[in-house]
Amino acid sequence: MSFVSVNIDQGLEAPVKLTRRALAKQRTRERVLAAARRLFSERGYEGATIRDIAQAAGMSTGAVFASFADKSELFEEILTADHEVIHAQMNQAARTAKTVDEALMGLFGVAYSFHVEQLPLLRASIAVSWTRSEAAERRARTELKHLFQLIDEALQRGVEQKQLKADVDAKLLAEIIWDVYLANYRRAVYDGWSVDALLERLSNQLKIILAGARA
Amino acid sequence: MSFVSVNIDQGLEAPVKLTRRALAKQRTRERVLAAARRLFSERGYEGATIRDIAQAAGMSTGAVFASFADKSELFEEILTADHEVIHAQMNQAARTAKTVDEALMGLFGVAYSFHVEQLPLLRASIAVSWTRSEAAERRARTELKHLFQLIDEALQRGVEQKQLKADVDAKLLAEIIWDVYLANYRRAVYDGWSVDALLERLSNQLKIILAGARA
Repeated sequence: MSFVSVNIDQGLEAPVKLTRRALAKQRTRERVLAAARRLFSERGYEGATIRDIAQAAGMSTGAVFASFADKSELFEEILTADHEVIHAQMNQAARTAKTVDEALMGLFGVAYSFHVEQLPLLRASIAVSWTRSEAAERRARTELKHLFQLIDEALQRGVEQKQLKADVDAKLLAEIIWDVYLANYRRAVYDGWSVDALLERLSNQLKIILAGARA
Repeated sequence: MSFVSVNIDQGLEAPVKLTRRALAKQRTRERVLAAARRLFSERGYEGATIRDIAQAAGMSTGAVFASFADKSELFEEILTADHEVIHAQMNQAARTAKTVDEALMGLFGVAYSFHVEQLPLLRASIAVSWTRSEAAERRARTELKHLFQLIDEALQRGVEQKQLKADVDAKLLAEIIWDVYLANYRRAVYDGWSVDALLERLSNQLKIILAGARA
């Protein structure tokens, strides 16, 4: 049994009215984020320092640190912003699809189109995903949950519509599909593959992965 | 039609007799490699500098550069040495197996056992695999070809022994299996999974991936 102290005022936030000071702070954050996004793309995560980013944003390193605790926080914030954009588009693509294959191709098509346009940032984010702290990994997984949920929902609808067997392990299937989806970016990075080429490969991979799950 | 000029003496090398000078050079290389392996494991690829490595090996940075062109060459040489060890063991595990599943579990079991013992180096090598130069990627793929061949051979034997259908796309199957095998290391890195836990997951993944390929 667990006791949770609940504050009934929680969640009731007063409407935010930005003071001039708060507005200035927000603009500073935006300038830093824009500069950081550019430098991470040009030089990778390790290659861009806070000093470089501050200089590119036209401010002191102290001013950067007033908004962000460290470089990893800055990097995470950029990826989070991208995630929010992409999640909404992937959701729409999946929900307007008629079959499980259409839904999966639709949602991953959105992701490929988005990331192939900014491959250097994607390379940096995959590399960082293998070297980050455990706490950063936890936060990343919390964000990824929303994307996995979209894949899971597409598979569940496939079950409901009797395209897939009722006893499929949707969680493990979703993770396998995710692994190959992500690994395919190597072809974009090193072989210059287009979104169409990536999707054709994914389509062939899905045929194999889903073969045993078809109803 | 291509014309190839062949030197019939090629491949006939005089037995190497190491001079004292050559022996000293070889010892230097070994000392540098040992120090580099330790520092890459402790600090990751980006965190270890040539200066650090030279210091740990008890020599000047100039002496390190006399043996290795740069840090990436040093890193590649460590991975190549590991590859040679692991390839022989994986080959043996695959060849003594009776079924395609046994062969795959056997060869990946060798790889998991090897890399889980030196996870920090594995993390660094996966991270680097997303940021390295195109030339370095080509060299890495040439090495990986030998491992893919083992997977491919295991699948082909599965076809010959009528465990798998004759028309399977062995190449694409091998790549899908490789992608999930590699992605599973995330569980070892961030969740402390043992080799047995990784293998249990891989076994479940193989059931899904091979389901449509079973004869």
